[in-house]
Formats: sequence, structure tokens, C-alpha cells
Amino acid sequence: MYKHVITANLQVRVIDQEMQAIGGQKLDMPSLCSAHLWKTSERWDLMGKELFRLKDRHGAEYCLGPTHEEAVTTLVAHQTTLSYRQLPLLLYQVTRKFRDEPKPKFGLLRGREFYMKDMYSFDADEAAARRTYDSVCRAYAALFARLGLRCVQVQADTGNIGGKLSHEFQLPADVGEDRLLVCGRCSFAANVETLPAGGADCPRCGGAAALAESKGIEVGHTFYLGEKYSRVFGAAFSNAQNKPAVAQMGCYGLGVTRILAAAVEVLSTEDGIRWPGLLAPYQVCVLPPKKGSKVDDAAAVAEELVRALGEAGPNMRGEVVLDDRTHMTIGKRLKDAAGLGYPYVVVVGGGALEDTPRFEVICQETSETTFLSKDALLDLLGRVETV
Amino acid sequence: MYKHVITANLQVRVIDQEMQAIGGQKLDMPSLCSAHLWKTSERWDLMGKELFRLKDRHGAEYCLGPTHEEAVTTLVAHQTTLSYRQLPLLLYQVTRKFRDEPKPKFGLLRGREFYMKDMYSFDADEAAARRTYDSVCRAYAALFARLGLRCVQVQADTGNIGGKLSHEFQLPADVGEDRLLVCGRCSFAANVETLPAGGADCPRCGGAAALAESKGIEVGHTFYLGEKYSRVFGAAFSNAQNKPAVAQMGCYGLGVTRILAAAVEVLSTEDGIRWPGLLAPYQVCVLPPKKGSKVDDAAAVAEELVRALGEAGPNMRGEVVLDDRTHMTIGKRLKDAAGLGYPYVVVVGGGALEDTPRFEVICQETSETTFLSKDALLDLLGRVETV
Repeated sequence: MYKHVITANLQVRVIDQEMQAIGGQKLDMPSLCSAHLWKTSERWDLMGKELFRLKDRHGAEYCLGPTHEEAVTTLVAHQTTLSYRQLPLLLYQVTRKFRDEPKPKFGLLRGREFYMKDMYSFDADEAAARRTYDSVCRAYAALFARLGLRCVQVQADTGNIGGKLSHEFQLPADVGEDRLLVCGRCSFAANVETLPAGGADCPRCGGAAALAESKGIEVGHTFYLGEKYSRVFGAAFSNAQNKPAVAQMGCYGLGVTRILAAAVEVLSTEDGIRWPGLLAPYQVCVLPPKKGSKVDDAAAVAEELVRALGEAGPNMRGEVVLDDRTHMTIGKRLKDAAGLGYPYVVVVGGGALEDTPRFEVICQETSETTFLSKDALLDLLGRVETV
Repeated sequence: MYKHVITANLQVRVIDQEMQAIGGQKLDMPSLCSAHLWKTSERWDLMGKELFRLKDRHGAEYCLGPTHEEAVTTLVAHQTTLSYRQLPLLLYQVTRKFRDEPKPKFGLLRGREFYMKDMYSFDADEAAARRTYDSVCRAYAALFARLGLRCVQVQADTGNIGGKLSHEFQLPADVGEDRLLVCGRCSFAANVETLPAGGADCPRCGGAAALAESKGIEVGHTFYLGEKYSRVFGAAFSNAQNKPAVAQMGCYGLGVTRILAAAVEVLSTEDGIRWPGLLAPYQVCVLPPKKGSKVDDAAAVAEELVRALGEAGPNMRGEVVLDDRTHMTIGKRLKDAAGLGYPYVVVVGGGALEDTPRFEVICQETSETTFLSKDALLDLLGRVETV
């Protein structure tokens, strides 16, 4: 849980933008969830050992929320004046979730305590709820595209959440624990768990032996819930005839900490870590020359450059680091920079002392090195997307 | 826990700025804390019923972290190459904390689950640790000044955290649960709990009957801990003689959710809620005329104004709301605006249709109404501080 906090904060900002773009309203629900709610939904027993359970000083039972269908549906049920005109209602949070996993592993990929974005939708009828469902799926696709991550949307099992329709968002990766079948001819893709054993023929286009298997890391999950929770907890609204009607629900999860770990897993190379550009803790690292070297005077140029780059545009504020450990060689610091995953590294050497100063710029994504003037560098970095 | 999320996010940004300005590094520690650590510090028994306790599926014991001295000291103890050159080390997080309060009350003022900013400092010797302690106290004072909240720093008891020196940061308020004694002659202030019963004479300046009592809401607490935790958990560093030495610690809490509730408590009036300006969910609310009124045409002007105000400066991005419930009278919507606490409300009425359009601007802090041109309004709002 320790060191992902900068990148996690950046990721939350991107998620906020995409969720709010489709009308999502952010809130915060408790981690301590009353057993009463979970018994009402019948999940208190169903969840078994996965649920962390505890009692307070008065003996009242609680669980640590692994998901919040019960809490959010109760919240909406208490909005007694909800009208069909206010629907769809999309409520989401980004909070820690708790699951007593039998085998926590791979660090942030599968922990017992992790950050999840969970959104819940409330609609007037099934057609509207399915439109909302599709809109969230499109927002997820847009999010992964912005993060530069290839993501496949696959048919999935509804598990103990329940409901009629479900998709997983999977990042193809060898380390993944899920097995996917993707059709080479049409857009069909599914988790192996959802398909009858045997055939590798595509159930959609009928293509013989068209399904190829790959491994995936599940980073998102969407469920169309219908009335499963809204009926039990009484989440209702006034319809156009001013009569009470039960809301049609969906729920939509994103594994915030897992996306970080998965992204590093799929993007990194043997030479260094690589973040999605938007999530890099800093965009630029500037390396002044080693102390005592022939071009020692360039150190002052490096400090001035850090100041100027930080003002290259509002996108660069707080994004530039000076690696002033000048007792170390450039080579050693370049290796550290690769290990930390700065998208751009700028080496300030002898070229910085010429009449028209030139800086060595290493772009991590392309592995290319170019020599740029200060103006060209300012122009390049001023166009980098940050959040 | 539900609706404070926008203001809480803003407050976290202000806290991040002030903590990072004194060298604080942000991280994230687990809520599930191993009983082993708490038994090592002997607080597993000491905390009694205030600690939420639970077991995982393997029977291992945990508590839900009410504070993180044990966790952070263990983390630092694992940094085996820590040098005196890297000190002071200031580590902080803003996370949910859990306390099984006997009587949760006043909503966010005293809940069992709440957001706290907790910082921990590690120094080479007592003199350096006391300088760090003072620097954090100054950062707290700066934070409350930026929020526009009058805050008193008082001598306090060290409670079950332990240590030698402690201060509370108190917001004077009638609803407060703490009793403070403040000297009218010198700068002495203390929690009643820390003073011998009886005398109202100031123990610092000796002023007879100089101490006046007031009530306060505790919003921050600082402790100088010395070696209490670092010795037990082995948080050490290499000193200038390259010998291992035990770090001198301090810890510093801020009640994030409690500050929100306390601020609303002390700033609001009977007519409406008031936020610290920096934390207002939106800075400006624009009211177009009621539909069907004589000045209905001004509705288009209002929409254009919202767009222009949102671009008055980078400070205004996302800060302007259009209250388009134009089936309601201006009066009713003004009342709602006061109830929500927008620092500025702009009424777009007949004046907006004149040759030189004028807008009615209500400033919540001063309760003054002025009539401004669009340029004057843009100028006014472009200078409002936001985070």
C-alpha cells in the first residue's frame, strides 16, 4: 500500500473526469457496513470467508465493505422525493475495499485491502438502464485508451453480485490469472468460465476454431442488476404517472490499485519501469553534470532549466525533478531514472555551455535520444498531456 | 460520510500543499493493522474497547488502525540504509481511521470512521526533533489561517500515544467538548485537563485570575514522542560517525472530516451555511430569471455568463454553477443558494438586458450586494483564491 500514492492520486483524477463526463456524482460510503444490510440482501452468508467481519463494543455485527450495493441502495431508498426526471442517477466512490482473499499475491494485483472505484446506476426502466450500462462501458474504454492500455471487454459470469448481464475489462498479460477466448474473425471475446467446455468455434460468428486463448488481468467489471437490490431495499422513484416504481440498477467496478500494478506489468521492459504517461509521478527528470567534471559549470544551467520547464505550461507544474545527486555519474543516474520511469530525461552536459545551448533528451516511450534547444524542449513538454 | 467528498478533496489539497512545503512526503498505510505490531508497542491492551478488532480466515488478529505509529516506525525500521543526511524524514498520509467511540455524535464531529491526516517525523537528535515539531505547529497555524479559521494552540495531555510534549489545536466553539483556559495577559493557553484544579491564575505570567474558560473543538494534535516507538521497533539511522542511532520521533494529527464539520459549525449563520472560501464546493452560483417572467430573455445572457466566468482564470475552472431550475422564483433559489453556501451568487435579471449589462452580485462573507458589469465581475472572481 505504501508508495503508489502519487500515481494513484493521478489515476483518481482521470477516473473522476471520465465518470463525471457521463454524469457520475462522487460520494463516500462507510467501510464499516452493518450486518443488518448484508443479511437483508442475503449476502452475509453467501460471501463466506471472503467477508471480514467484526463486532463493535456493543456487540453489533459489521463487515468491512468489499462492495457497496447494500449501502448505496439504502441511501437512494431514503431519497423519498426522487422523480423519474432526476434519473439516471449515477453515484460513485473511490475508496478502500476489503476482501479476505485466500491467497493474496503479486503485491497490488491481488491484495486484501485495495482501492476500488465503484459506481451504481439507477434508471427508470430496463431500456434506460441498458443505455446507462453501455455508456459506462464506453467510459471505461475511453479511460483505458487515455492511459494507453490495450483492454478487451469480455462476457463474464455474474458471480455473487447477481444480475443478468456482465462484462469484464481485461488487460491481456502473461501474469494474468484469467483465461480469455477472443475470436479472430468477429469482435466476440469471453472469459473461459462463461463458455461450455470443448469447442473453439465462435458462438457468435460460428467461425470454426476461431477462438484463441490468452491470459488477462481483470481491471474492471460491469453488472446489469435489474431490481435485485432496489426491490429488497425499496429504492423507488415517482414515475411520469406520479406512481412509485422500483429503480433498475447497474454496478460498475474499476480496480484502482490493480490498474496501477497491471499497467506497470504490461508496459515495463527489462531496462526499466514504465507508467502510463498520464500517471507518471513526474514527467521530466533533469540531470546536471557530475561534480568536478569538465562541464561542471552546466549545473547552473540545469537549475535554471528546471525552473523554465516547470513553467512550460500549466501541464508541467510540479512535474519536473532535478536529480542533484551530483556525486554520482550521469550513467548511474540514468539507470535510476529508467528504474523510476520518468517519461522524459534531460541530460545537461557540455552542449548546454555552447553559444546555442543543446540538451540531450531521452524519450522513454520511443527510446529515442534527440538534441534539442531550450525552446524546442519547452515546446515539446508544453504539449504533454497531464492531469 | 456521504456528501462531504468535494470539500474533503479540496481540504486534502490544501493540507498536501502545507505538509509538502515543510518537506512532508505522502504515502498510504493499511487500515488492517497486524495485532503483532500493536502487542509489540503494548497498545493492544492499552487501547481497550476503542480499538476495532477482527480476525482473518486463518485466525490471525488485526485491528483497524486508529493511528499508525506502529506501522510507520516498522516501515522506517526496514530502511536499513537510512543516513543522518536524509533526516528529518516526514511521512504523512490522509486516510480513514477507525475508533470505536462509546458515543459517536454530531455527525462528522465525532464518528467511528473518519479521515485523518497523520504525519510522523524522524530526526537525528532531540534538538532537531523539536525544530521539526515547531515547524509542523507553524504549518498547522498557516493551514488554519488559509482556511480563515481562528485556532488556538494549547498545552495538552499526551494520552495513550505517549511522549513528553503535546499540543492541541482547538477551534473555539460553543458546541466544543473540550474546556480550554486562555490567559488574557500572555499567550498561555491550555486544555483544562492539563492544569491542577482550582486556580484561575496564569501559570506562565502569574497574572491573578487571568485565565478565562472557553469551549473548543479539537481539530489537531501534536506529540513529541522521543524514542518511545523508534526504540521498540528499531527505527535507526547511521549517524555522522557511521554508527547506528535511534531516531527521535514526533507525530501530528489533523481531523480532516472534523475540520469540515467544525468550520461549518463556527462560520455558519442562521441564514445559511458557510464554508471556508477555499473549501466551498463551488465558488459561484448564477441564477437566470424565472421562466415566463418579463426578463425571460436574460436566460441566454446567464448561460453565456457561466461560460465566461468559468474562464475568468484558471482559479475558476469547474467553480461556476448555473441554477437552471427556472420554474422556481429567484427568491426561492436564493434561499437554496444560502443553504448550500456558495461564496458568490450572481442574479441575472433585467439589468442584464440593458445596453451596459449589470449583474446583481451577493458576496456571502460580507452579506453585501453590488451591481457589477461583466468585466468588473470577471476581475473580482479572477482574484478569488481556489485550490
